[in-house]
Amino acid sequence: MSKNRLIYLPLGGAGEIGMNMYLYGYGPEGAERYILVDVGVTFPDMDTTPGVDLIMADADYIIQRADRLEGIIITHAHEDHIGAIGLLYPKLQAPIYCRPFTAAIAQNKMERDGNDPKKVQECAPWPAMVEVGPFQIGFVPISHSIPEASALVIDSPAGRIFHTGDFKTDPSPLVGEAFDPDLIASVAKGGVKALMCDSTNVFSPNPGRSEASLKEDIGKLMAEAEGMIVATTFASNVARLKTLAQAAKDAGRSVIVAGRAMNTMIQTAVSTGVLTDFPPVLDVEDFGDVPRRNLLVLATGSQGERRAATAGLARGKYRGIELQKGDTYLFSSKTIPGNERSISHIYNQLAEQGVNVIDADDGHYHVSGHANRPDLVQMHDLINADVVIPMHGEYRHLREHAELVESNGGTALIAKNGVMVDLTHQAKVVEQIEVGRTYLDGTVLIGNMDGIVRERLQMALRGHMVVSLVLEEDGTPIDGAWIEAVGMPDESRHQNGLIENLERAVDDTMETATRKMLRSDEAIEDAVSRVVQKVCSDTVGKKPVVTVMINRLVTE
Amino acid sequence: MSKNRLIYLPLGGAGEIGMNMYLYGYGPEGAERYILVDVGVTFPDMDTTPGVDLIMADADYIIQRADRLEGIIITHAHEDHIGAIGLLYPKLQAPIYCRPFTAAIAQNKMERDGNDPKKVQECAPWPAMVEVGPFQIGFVPISHSIPEASALVIDSPAGRIFHTGDFKTDPSPLVGEAFDPDLIASVAKGGVKALMCDSTNVFSPNPGRSEASLKEDIGKLMAEAEGMIVATTFASNVARLKTLAQAAKDAGRSVIVAGRAMNTMIQTAVSTGVLTDFPPVLDVEDFGDVPRRNLLVLATGSQGERRAATAGLARGKYRGIELQKGDTYLFSSKTIPGNERSISHIYNQLAEQGVNVIDADDGHYHVSGHANRPDLVQMHDLINADVVIPMHGEYRHLREHAELVESNGGTALIAKNGVMVDLTHQAKVVEQIEVGRTYLDGTVLIGNMDGIVRERLQMALRGHMVVSLVLEEDGTPIDGAWIEAVGMPDESRHQNGLIENLERAVDDTMETATRKMLRSDEAIEDAVSRVVQKVCSDTVGKKPVVTVMINRLVTE
Repeated sequence: MSKNRLIYLPLGGAGEIGMNMYLYGYGPEGAERYILVDVGVTFPDMDTTPGVDLIMADADYIIQRADRLEGIIITHAHEDHIGAIGLLYPKLQAPIYCRPFTAAIAQNKMERDGNDPKKVQECAPWPAMVEVGPFQIGFVPISHSIPEASALVIDSPAGRIFHTGDFKTDPSPLVGEAFDPDLIASVAKGGVKALMCDSTNVFSPNPGRSEASLKEDIGKLMAEAEGMIVATTFASNVARLKTLAQAAKDAGRSVIVAGRAMNTMIQTAVSTGVLTDFPPVLDVEDFGDVPRRNLLVLATGSQGERRAATAGLARGKYRGIELQKGDTYLFSSKTIPGNERSISHIYNQLAEQGVNVIDADDGHYHVSGHANRPDLVQMHDLINADVVIPMHGEYRHLREHAELVESNGGTALIAKNGVMVDLTHQAKVVEQIEVGRTYLDGTVLIGNMDGIVRERLQMALRGHMVVSLVLEEDGTPIDGAWIEAVGMPDESRHQNGLIENLERAVDDTMETATRKMLRSDEAIEDAVSRVVQKVCSDTVGKKPVVTVMINRLVTE
Repeated sequence: MSKNRLIYLPLGGAGEIGMNMYLYGYGPEGAERYILVDVGVTFPDMDTTPGVDLIMADADYIIQRADRLEGIIITHAHEDHIGAIGLLYPKLQAPIYCRPFTAAIAQNKMERDGNDPKKVQECAPWPAMVEVGPFQIGFVPISHSIPEASALVIDSPAGRIFHTGDFKTDPSPLVGEAFDPDLIASVAKGGVKALMCDSTNVFSPNPGRSEASLKEDIGKLMAEAEGMIVATTFASNVARLKTLAQAAKDAGRSVIVAGRAMNTMIQTAVSTGVLTDFPPVLDVEDFGDVPRRNLLVLATGSQGERRAATAGLARGKYRGIELQKGDTYLFSSKTIPGNERSISHIYNQLAEQGVNVIDADDGHYHVSGHANRPDLVQMHDLINADVVIPMHGEYRHLREHAELVESNGGTALIAKNGVMVDLTHQAKVVEQIEVGRTYLDGTVLIGNMDGIVRERLQMALRGHMVVSLVLEEDGTPIDGAWIEAVGMPDESRHQNGLIENLERAVDDTMETATRKMLRSDEAIEDAVSRVVQKVCSDTVGKKPVVTVMINRLVTE
């Protein structure tokens, strides 16, 4: 029997920002018992994933070994760490461990997707630990832009791992636990084999600022703005919601919450006890009864999401709330890369309504939830692990993070998604797994290599020509070809004779075809596709996707 | 006969950054003689314009009045001011006026698109003026990130207009004329009716920096980097190319130019005399003969364009040039909003090759070509026009610019695309024209409202189901329906029985159809589309685009 080994295999999040999923295993090679840390999602875009609903890491490796999966650990309730739990649970079927606020959200997701919410177990924070297979897991409170974020102590017979999850080093985060360097140092006292560390802000050179530092600027804005203020941020940033709402209250403004996600999040935070002293909230129906000068609306949709409150207000109205010239719209949030165009579109709509837009570019109205470069160094020093393995970042973040560690005399190892690291002794790469991505497409989970999304992209870029042929059993055409253009400049809209040219060319192809070709659907399809692409290219300069429907009539 | 009037009608650029096109007219209402200033393009994106090749303003208003168009004036040779000249010329057919460097590029474009390059007339700079219909036009040299940029003096019997084009207030731009406040003031001496002013950088609070300020940092980088340096910037930023090449020469590095656009631009700048003292350039073939430490490669593709040199190098190779670990890649350029994802993808590819990426975020390696807020105020003060009409910007830029003017005691008027302003006396809005956008799609010019691109977007988001039916003349089905899925999770890839369910449902629909319905192709199409969407929605959670091909066999 082979010796026990301790392995680490990132499946998602190590090569992108989003869809975190990290596998740890302990046991004899090929018989390891596993824990999975985080099951996140990321969001689709038109460039690569049109029509897709959600993107998650390819969990195939652990799905094939699900009988050896002992538990799923969730560090915190952001979508990129928890979002896939209900979708992948049916294939994983292992108990879920997290702290109570995170558990409340995990239970919602489990229920929504038809799973048993009781599979989610609430855990007490460090120094309490929970046994999961060969591992002992401790949830170490750490500050982040959502309540009850946890770093993980992962103990195995081969030693201790410290997995930061997402974190910042905020001494006064207002909601949720402060960053406590002494606590972190105490966890590391007995020695740590490996530090898996958040990399997202490694390119930010200055120390991170505290949530508390926003109070003054936001207070000033609430006091001085003349009309109504609408503020948008992530629904899960409960601390920010509290900062905004308290500043509003101090300035004599009542608070209305617009957007389902934000209402749910506030309720969950209150009911789990992580949010206290939140000012009373008016109903959306009370809008109109309060002078605009005395109102703050907290709105969802800081990333320009089309169905959220912010996009609705920018278009004109959201559930009875309307903007007026002179109102102020505060984006108390950063722009996630890729969302620039949607957000800019909203800024312009607001400008057309005469609304003053204030963004967070100058740092007065937003602080990040992630550790910046000097904060990362602080973490490295506190944990003082044998090796730092950067996680949660694009490749450039992982590389920069590794170089940062090494420039300070530490040891780092880059493991992107699919790279298995053996941590038993000195950390070393032992295997490279093929990893893809899984898409939720409508109600179906599909793979990024299935070709489905590629076909959609091709139709978007090139248009689609559909050719219908009706043939005798032997292939003799019964009638001329019929061709329909979708997403192409045809003559119904432009006088270019495209369809006429096409039908003539296809009929010519069929008339001059050999008997052998006429007997093969495949041969006809090839020849017709080729001629359709050529004629389209000659007539309108585009080579479309072609679908040929061959109807052969069986004569009895 | 009605009195003469002086009008201004922005068709593109006033409501977006890109595709500039501004119309000026003078004469009796309905019989004005026109000049068109700039005929630019903007670039498509997957979110709104998949498969489109170029986007330009909708010139329909002036195309319908082309017999009264006296000339086309081009301020400078950036694509967003000149890019559509060859495409729209056939519909406009008016002489083109610009300065020699711009003319050389306009002539290339005219020729490429099959027009007579002799229609482009070279103009001398201010104080020379050229008569174009009722207007006298003067090309006032102004600094920008391309040689020979010009502001325009537009004189008419109703007074003088100053149209800045794109500009910055750089006293030492290295290539091209410096910003000369005395010259601008002298132009304005007799009074100016209206200042049409660039708005793109109105949100940048600090005074713009000079091209010359980059010399030190770029020089240091060239001297200290250990491997090869590749630098990318806009091909047309000839000044930057010179800054980079001279710094390379001073550091003992030879220069190779990778990318067709950059080679053409350098040649044009040299042949028209605007670029002097450019260091000798090696052939791409000489790569390999020079130690890496002694090389600078100037590369196209700073915006992540897929076919440019930068994307090629990031993928592994471009025309024999390969990167190595330890090389440096300098992005001496800003990221145009919308290109973040493509550029970030390239950063990651470079990081995987161990190449050090240096971007321009901290301002050491790039300065903007546009006037910042304080620079705009300087321009307002120098021209001291009766009214400032902000141009070239999204709506939020125009609004901010107008507020800036008014906060300093000036008068401003916002005219977005399609808003006609009468400048004869006090500036006032007189008409609102319907304006859209024109797309080059393959080789065809289509309108944004034609529905073609919308069909492509729908197929990308929802997939496409094609149904083929063969019917007797009276509508009796001869055979079962045949259905093909494109961009949908069908059973060829997922065992969900989708096609089987669909074919059964369509056959049922046809079997239970009334004789009346069977006689109408439209009724069949409606009913079949509805049932296909319902079954898809039930089976895979998506409602696809449906195309129904009905083949009716005429029995003689």
